[in-house]
Amino acid sequence: MTLSRTATTFFPPVMEARRWLDGVTFTPDRPLINVSQAAPVDPPPEALRRAMAEVTLSNDEAHLYGPVLGLPELRAELARQTAEKYAGVVTDEQVCITSGCNQAFAAAIATLCGEGDEVILPTPWYFNHKMWLDMSGVAAVPLPVEADMLPDPARAEALITPRTRAITLITPNNPTGVEYPAALVQAFFDLARRHGIALILDETYRDFHSRPGPPHALFSDPDWHDTLIHLYSFSKAYRLTGHRVGALIASKARLAEVEKFLDTVAICPAQIGQHGALWGMQNLGPWLAGEREEILARRAAISDLMPKLEPLGWELLGLGGYFAYMRHPFDISSADLAPQLVRDAGVLSLPGTMFTPEGDNSGAAQLRIAFANLDAAGLTTLFDRLAALPRNA
Amino acid sequence: MTLSRTATTFFPPVMEARRWLDGVTFTPDRPLINVSQAAPVDPPPEALRRAMAEVTLSNDEAHLYGPVLGLPELRAELARQTAEKYAGVVTDEQVCITSGCNQAFAAAIATLCGEGDEVILPTPWYFNHKMWLDMSGVAAVPLPVEADMLPDPARAEALITPRTRAITLITPNNPTGVEYPAALVQAFFDLARRHGIALILDETYRDFHSRPGPPHALFSDPDWHDTLIHLYSFSKAYRLTGHRVGALIASKARLAEVEKFLDTVAICPAQIGQHGALWGMQNLGPWLAGEREEILARRAAISDLMPKLEPLGWELLGLGGYFAYMRHPFDISSADLAPQLVRDAGVLSLPGTMFTPEGDNSGAAQLRIAFANLDAAGLTTLFDRLAALPRNA
Repeated sequence: MTLSRTATTFFPPVMEARRWLDGVTFTPDRPLINVSQAAPVDPPPEALRRAMAEVTLSNDEAHLYGPVLGLPELRAELARQTAEKYAGVVTDEQVCITSGCNQAFAAAIATLCGEGDEVILPTPWYFNHKMWLDMSGVAAVPLPVEADMLPDPARAEALITPRTRAITLITPNNPTGVEYPAALVQAFFDLARRHGIALILDETYRDFHSRPGPPHALFSDPDWHDTLIHLYSFSKAYRLTGHRVGALIASKARLAEVEKFLDTVAICPAQIGQHGALWGMQNLGPWLAGEREEILARRAAISDLMPKLEPLGWELLGLGGYFAYMRHPFDISSADLAPQLVRDAGVLSLPGTMFTPEGDNSGAAQLRIAFANLDAAGLTTLFDRLAALPRNA
Repeated sequence: MTLSRTATTFFPPVMEARRWLDGVTFTPDRPLINVSQAAPVDPPPEALRRAMAEVTLSNDEAHLYGPVLGLPELRAELARQTAEKYAGVVTDEQVCITSGCNQAFAAAIATLCGEGDEVILPTPWYFNHKMWLDMSGVAAVPLPVEADMLPDPARAEALITPRTRAITLITPNNPTGVEYPAALVQAFFDLARRHGIALILDETYRDFHSRPGPPHALFSDPDWHDTLIHLYSFSKAYRLTGHRVGALIASKARLAEVEKFLDTVAICPAQIGQHGALWGMQNLGPWLAGEREEILARRAAISDLMPKLEPLGWELLGLGGYFAYMRHPFDISSADLAPQLVRDAGVLSLPGTMFTPEGDNSGAAQLRIAFANLDAAGLTTLFDRLAALPRNA
C-alpha cells in the first residue's frame, strides 16, 4: 500500500515546539522569551487597519471572489516597485498574488516537478520547503552550506542530474539569517540557466536586508524570466501574517500554469489582505524604512552581545533578516536542548535538527533565534539567560 | 522527462468561460446574464461587514498568524451546529477550518492518497476535484450517474480496486443540483466502510437543501469518523467567497495529517474571514433561513418556467442547490454551444463537457445553469432568451 502524501513527511515543527510549553509555568518577572517563529507580534499600523476596515465596509467587490492570480492593482504595484527596487523590467502579467509565500513555493514546484523529480536545497533548509517537496513526491537534494554558511555553486552543479528541476535559495536566509552576496545569487542563476533548470529565489525577508540598493541584479537581465522564479511575502513588511498575502514573479507562461494550481487549492487570495498589502505598498514606504532600521539595530545589538556568550563556547554562525543562527556549546543535541531551554531558561527557540536532513548531524549543535520581536532590553535578557545556563545543562 | 504536476491537468474552466466574453458587447437593455459561477454576487449583510470591520480595528490577534487548523471558537461553533443539524456527535477536535472548500478537498486527498492511487467520482464531476486529483498523481475513476442523475453504489463497488482510497460525493450536487437521498448517502457510507476506504462528502450547498431536517444520518453513527470526511463552505451561506473560509470534519487523527498539508500550503486561514464566519454562524441564522427560502423560490420558478423550453427539446436533468442542469436540443456540442450562447443570447453558462471525462460524450448535450443569482424576472428573461434561439443555432 502506498503512503499518502502527508504520510511521507513530518509534523509541522512550529507546532511541535509549541507543545514544549505544555506544563511549564512562566512568571511575570521571568516571562517566556519566544524566539521560535519568524513573525511580527504587533499588529499592522493603525492607519493600515483603518484602510482595511474601510474596504470591508464600502467595497462590495472585496467580499466576492477575485481573480485567481490576485487583485490587478496589487499585481501592478508590486511589478512597478520590484522593477524599481531591482533596476529591472517586470510587467504586471509576470506577477501574481498568492495566499502567503509558502503557497507561492508550492505553486512554483507544482509547475516544475512531477513524481520522482529533484530540487536542490541548501542545508540547513526551510522545513516547509522540505515538507512540500515530500508531499509532492519530489526529492529534496541537500546542498550543505560551507563554513561561511553560503552554498557553493560548484558543489551544487555536481548534484544536478537529469531529474533536477530547480535550485531554491532563500536570501536573507531562513534559518541562518545570512544575506547571499549579489555575485553568489548571480552565479546560481547562471548555473541554473546553463542547465535549463529554474532558480527559485525566496526573498521573504528582503525588506530587512542590510545593504542599500538591489540585493542582486537578476531582474536587470531582460530574459530573467526564462530561469528565475521570485517569491515574496507581504507578511513581514506590513505585519499582515494573519491575512495570508504573498507573491510569485515569473514568466507569463508559467503564471498560466500557476493559475491551475491556485484555482484548485485557493480559488483566490483573501481580498481584504490584498487591499491591505496594496495600501501598505502605496502609503507605508517611510514606515517600512523605519522598521528596517529597527531590525538592523536589533541585529547590531546581537553582534554586540555575543562577547557574553563566546567565552562560554557559543558561536554566531549567521545573522540577518529575522534570524540569528547559533552554535551552542552543550554536549547534547539541539533536539533535546531546545525543550530543555524552555524549562531552564524560559526561552523557546528552534533546534537546528528541524532544519537539517535526517542523518546530517550538523543541526545537532545549532539553534535558530528569531530575534526580530525582541527589543534591546529583551535581547539583553535573552543573552543573560543563555549565559546563566550551567555548563553542561 | 516527466510532466510537471500542473502540466497533467487542464486550464481552469471558469477562466476559459470568461474569455468567451472578450469582444462581445452587451447593452443596457440586453445585459449579460452570467450563470457560469456558483457564487453570490451580493456582498454579505451590512451587520456582518460591520462586525468584520470592528475585528479589523480592535482585535490585534486577527492580524497575526492563527492556529493552522483555524480559530478555536469557529471550530467549536461549527462542531456544535453540525452536531445539532445532523443529530450526531461532533467534537471541536474533529473540525478544522480551511482557506475555502477546494482546499479542504485538496487536504483530504493529501491525507488519503499517494502516486497512482484512485478516487471514485460520480460524473458529471466538479472540475476542481478532477484537477486536484490530476495534480496529485491520483486517477479520478469516473462513475457515470444513472438516468435520475444519481450514482449507483453497486456500480461504484464494481470500480473499487486495491488502489481505491475514497469515493467523493457532492450533495446537493455540483454541477447537477441533485440532492442525494439520505438512504443513498448511507449506502455509499456503508460501501466505503466495508471496503476500508473513505467517503468524502462535500456539502458546500447544504444550507440550501430543500428537505428540512438532517440531509443524512451519517453523523449519528458514533464511529462516523472511521470513514467519513465531511467538507463545508462558509462562502455561499454568508456570502464570504472573497474571504476564503471552508471546513473539513474528520477524525482527530486525520486532522493531524491535514495539519501538515495546511501548514505547508497556507499556514492558517485568513483571520478576518474566520471571524466573519463565526459572527455569521452566531447571528445570521434567521437571515440564512430567509436566503434558503429565496433560493428555493428561484428553484421553483425554474420548474415553472420549463414548459417554455420543453416543447423546444430542452430537458431539466437536475435541479437544486445553486444549479439547474439541462439537456439542450441542439446538434452541436455544448463546448461550442456555450460560447455561441454568449453571442446569440447574452448568456454565459458552462458546458457539460467541462464536467465530464474526455471520451464521455454525455456532457456534449448538457449545460450547467448556476441560477442562484437570478431573481424571478431574471429567470424569466433567461428562459425567454433560450426559447428565442433558432432551432439549430
